[in-house]
Formats: sequence, structure tokens, C-alpha cells
Amino acid sequence: MTSIIAIDAMGGDFGPQVTIPASLECLKANPNLKLILVGDEVVLNEWLAQDLTQHSERLIIHHASQQIEMDESPQKALRSKKDSSMRVAINQVRDGHADACVSAGNTGALMAIARFVLKTIPGIDRPAIMSTLPSIFGHTHILDLGANVDCTAEQLFQFAIMGEEVVKAVENIDEPKIGLLNIGEEDMKGNEQVKAAGKLLEASSLNYIGYVEGNSLNAGHEKVDLIVTDGFVGNVALKAIEGAAKMIGTKLKDAFSQNIVTKIAAVIASPVLKIFKQSVDPRMHNGASFVGLRGLVIKSHGGADILAFKTAIHLAEVEIEKDVTRKISAKVAATLENREEV
Amino acid sequence: MTSIIAIDAMGGDFGPQVTIPASLECLKANPNLKLILVGDEVVLNEWLAQDLTQHSERLIIHHASQQIEMDESPQKALRSKKDSSMRVAINQVRDGHADACVSAGNTGALMAIARFVLKTIPGIDRPAIMSTLPSIFGHTHILDLGANVDCTAEQLFQFAIMGEEVVKAVENIDEPKIGLLNIGEEDMKGNEQVKAAGKLLEASSLNYIGYVEGNSLNAGHEKVDLIVTDGFVGNVALKAIEGAAKMIGTKLKDAFSQNIVTKIAAVIASPVLKIFKQSVDPRMHNGASFVGLRGLVIKSHGGADILAFKTAIHLAEVEIEKDVTRKISAKVAATLENREEV
Repeated sequence: MTSIIAIDAMGGDFGPQVTIPASLECLKANPNLKLILVGDEVVLNEWLAQDLTQHSERLIIHHASQQIEMDESPQKALRSKKDSSMRVAINQVRDGHADACVSAGNTGALMAIARFVLKTIPGIDRPAIMSTLPSIFGHTHILDLGANVDCTAEQLFQFAIMGEEVVKAVENIDEPKIGLLNIGEEDMKGNEQVKAAGKLLEASSLNYIGYVEGNSLNAGHEKVDLIVTDGFVGNVALKAIEGAAKMIGTKLKDAFSQNIVTKIAAVIASPVLKIFKQSVDPRMHNGASFVGLRGLVIKSHGGADILAFKTAIHLAEVEIEKDVTRKISAKVAATLENREEV
Repeated sequence: MTSIIAIDAMGGDFGPQVTIPASLECLKANPNLKLILVGDEVVLNEWLAQDLTQHSERLIIHHASQQIEMDESPQKALRSKKDSSMRVAINQVRDGHADACVSAGNTGALMAIARFVLKTIPGIDRPAIMSTLPSIFGHTHILDLGANVDCTAEQLFQFAIMGEEVVKAVENIDEPKIGLLNIGEEDMKGNEQVKAAGKLLEASSLNYIGYVEGNSLNAGHEKVDLIVTDGFVGNVALKAIEGAAKMIGTKLKDAFSQNIVTKIAAVIASPVLKIFKQSVDPRMHNGASFVGLRGLVIKSHGGADILAFKTAIHLAEVEIEKDVTRKISAKVAATLENREEV
């Protein structure tokens, strides 16, 4: 089965410099992949000059005259950039020309445009941003990562339903363990929304294991497959982890750079340090899914390099293959139906 | 000047096994320190048997017949444990027998009892939990870490006023840079409370630098001295960082344990790895201040070992010396007065 992905080729901090080589490498790796590169055709053709013929039958350039800046307001982007590479890429999904869209552009604009163009799945109030973090046990899925600053208990419950379908499909597991992020594991802890969401989850058929704390994202007492939280807390936690990793990496580098003896130790330890770096490489976890929309949209980190952007494209390939959007819609519809029967 | 600190000697995961040796080492290090060890006198005397005479003139045992369990509900602890080591230690502060209290016990119970016994400073709605995190730039102070799950803009503003006084006193700096934790640095980002708190801070005389993101806790673009957030977000961020550090440490150990070659590299690199571990050792940042109370209370991590508990006692010594409680009260009173004049 052929998968078709629309790439916002102008998006991200580096634009075509990253999106084009990553796209070409993905085409090479997967003979069943077709890509629609959306952006300024003059610019894209320049970047493609030497490589275009190689995959010409599976690589389409779709011109878009505008591009959205990384710091542009989502409202302005939505109103005034109707021919932006981001919007035209999302249109490809809406019109059935592509199975998914991948963009490293402005997150707020991508969410606003995706929601406006694709609309939410019936029964879902708000889409959420979902991604994975490396953990001692492998990795952990988490949503929401910033689309919704305040969430009702019902919204948190919807995140759990949608997130479970993604984890089931992507990880090939039947009953992912779902935890609700809180500031303690006891029943009395937390704010009202989280407590009420806990009750909805307990009463559901989901494999809900209860409250989990911030350390469960990377470590904790036991493996949790999916952690549910509101977008404010999820975003702060994600970035706190990024900051901690950066600090620890810097301190490790500093320790090995102190003097000639430590520098020799660094040379000897370098193959080990390379393995270590690979094991915590954030580029291997790049790509966040916008769940709850009537179409697949994957957000890459804005500062993604070629390897990281390839990871995001690969996530889109997996979610297309596993038919994640249809599965989420079916699960949400079934849940709503069960409720009406009660 | 002599400082007197009441130690909840029964608190924490290890009780006297940690609190007694840490106390004795602190007495040895500071000849102007007096300690009141509060707990079961039979147990404490057993632990002290060989060391008691050494510092007898600066070490007082104060008997308390009860102790609060680590998982006991704060309400139950408050109502039914009036002779607990924790409560009696706090009573020493209220009654002027001690300048501060240090406990590694149950956080919820410590906050509930401290608030009930000591009361809040006039003008402060709720006390907050404040601590430091290591960062690329040194370290960062943060509050609240879990005392208040929902905070109004006014409460966040009060946290900033109190936190600033602590940072000024402890760090000897005149105008600490204060950031408000948010999910983006642009004005439009965040929930209503954070946006409103940002306006209060902008209008104040504090050195407010604007919104900061989760990565600013340990890294970020520039040094921030104090980060203000509500207790839910602060607690999740703190624990997320703990989990990230644990995972990274585990992966580093795994990389060096793979085979005989990597194990030899580990031996060669071990002096460097030791320096690295010291630079990110959480025990050197143990001790959280309860700010906003009419008395000094320091909470140690429950799992603190001797070194970590000593760090918490040392924090109490510094805050006593710098007269932090009085400075906070004076600043809050002055701020209230200015408002009434407006």
C-alpha cells in the first residue's frame, strides 16, 4: 500500500535545508512512500536540482506562495496566509491527496490551521498534542503537550481514549497502562479537574492505573505506557526534561574538559559516551501527533535536523499504516454510543 | 550569634539513623549552633549513647511520644498527633525556643501543622514551598513546589514577593531576576491566572523579566534567579527533572557496563564521572523552605541521607543568619501599605 505524505517544506528553523534531504532519504528507505513537497517551487527546485530525477515518480512539488514565520500569531497566520506552505500541506490531507501532513513550523499556527481546515472528530471538544519521551523502561507516550492550557475532566478523559488508540496501534499492545499526571499518588491529592478525570477513568473500560507523578515520565516505579495531563502541565514537564538533559550533558562535557588527564579519559570513554548519547538522543523521539482531528498531522520540533525530521516523517508513515485516525474516530463513536445507552 | 534549630529527629524514611549523625556533624562544623532533637527520648538516647557527651552543652533532647507516618493524612496528623516529634519541633519555633525547625517527615502533614501552629504572615493567603535546582548557570530558586494546587494571580504575585526576599538574602544579590513559568514566552500564551499574574508583576517594582519556559529551570537562554509557578506545575516539573536525571544516570551506567572494554573505560573515566556526579548531586540541593509563615520551617527530602539532611540543616542556619522570616514580613507589609496608598 502506498502512503502519501504532504511535507510543509518551508517550515521550521531551517526550512528546505532540512526538509528536502530528510524527504529524499525517506523516499529512498521506503519504496511505497510518495511525498508532496509544499512550498515555493523556485526555492524547492533549487534545493532539489541534483536529486530530483532520482525519485521523480514519487516526489511531487506543490507550489505555495507564502510561508508562516516561527513567531507569527496563529490568528494572523490563519486569516492572512491562505497560500502558505503549511496551510496548503494541510489542504492536501483534507482533499484526500495525502494521508498525512508533516510540518516543523510554528506549533500554534499549525494547530489553529489544522483545526480550522480538518475539523475535530465528532465527540471531541479539542484536539491534543501527543508525543513520546525516552524512559528507563523504553518510552512513555504523553498528551496534551500544549494545545489546551485549561482542561475539564471530560477533556482529560477524551485525551485518554484517543491516546490509548495511538499507543495500541503504534506499540502493538492490547491494553496500554494509562496514568493521570498528579502531584501525589493518593486519592486526596490534586486539583478538582484531575480528581474528576480520575473518577471517569476508573469507571471506564480503559486500563487505568491511577495517579502518577512527574518522575513517571522518564523513570518512576513501574512502566506506564500513556500519561494524560493538561497542555500547560504537559508542556512545562516536557521542557523541564529538555532543560535537565541539556544541563546534565553540559556538566558531563565540562567534567571531561577540565585538563589533559580528563581529556585523555574522554578519548578512551568516547565510544561509550557515543552509545550513551544515542540512548538519550531526543532526535529519535521527534514528532508529535495532533490527535482528535479528521486527518493526520505530525508536528516536528522547529529546530529539527535531518535525522530528527526523518523521525517525524517516519512517525507519519507508521500512523498511516496503522490507520490511527480511523481507529480514534471509531473508538470515540463507540464510547459516545455506550454513554447514550446508559 | 547562636542559632537554635529544632530537629524532627523521628521524621523521614530513616528517622534517627540519619537525623542524629547529621545533627552531630552540623554541631561539630558550627560552634554557634544549638540543636533541640525532638523525638522518643529512649530511642534518641540509644542512638546518641556514644556521642552525647561530646556536644552536651549544645544538644538538647526534647521528648515527644508520637510520630507521624510518611503516608498519614495531614488532617489526621493535625488532629490526633499533638505530641508528635514534628508538631513539638514546630512548637519550639512558635514558643521562641528555636529559630527554625527542620523535618524530613510527611510534607502534607508538615505544611498543615506548620500553618496551624505558626499561622501565616499578615497579608499572605497561603504559604508556599520553595527550593533550588542546579542549573547551567549555578542554580535556580523556584516556588511553589506543591503546597497550592490552584493559585490565583494574587497568590502567584505574593510568591514572587516572598521568593525575592529569600533569594536576596541567601544569594546576596540586590535585584534577583524573576520569571513566571509559562508555556511560551509570548504575551498571548498561558492560562488566565498566569496572564493576570504577569500584569501584576509588570506593574510592580520587582525585577520581573517575563514568562519563562520549563527548560529555564535547569538551562534556558539566560540565568533566571527565581521562577514562580503554582504548586501543581512546580511539583510536576520538579519530579519530571528528578525522573530525567535518574533515567540519564541509568543509561550512562548501562553504557559503561556493557562489556569488558566499556568496564575498563569506566575505571579510567571514574575520577571524571565522580566530578560529574558531584556537580549534579541532588543531595547538595536538599531542603525546601516553607515561606509565608511566622516562623522558619525547612523540609528535607524524606529519603535524605546524612549528607542531604546536613544540607537541609545548613539551609536553616543560613536563613536564620539572614533573618529571612522578618525580611519577608517587612516586605509584605510594605507592599500592602503601598497598595493602600494608591
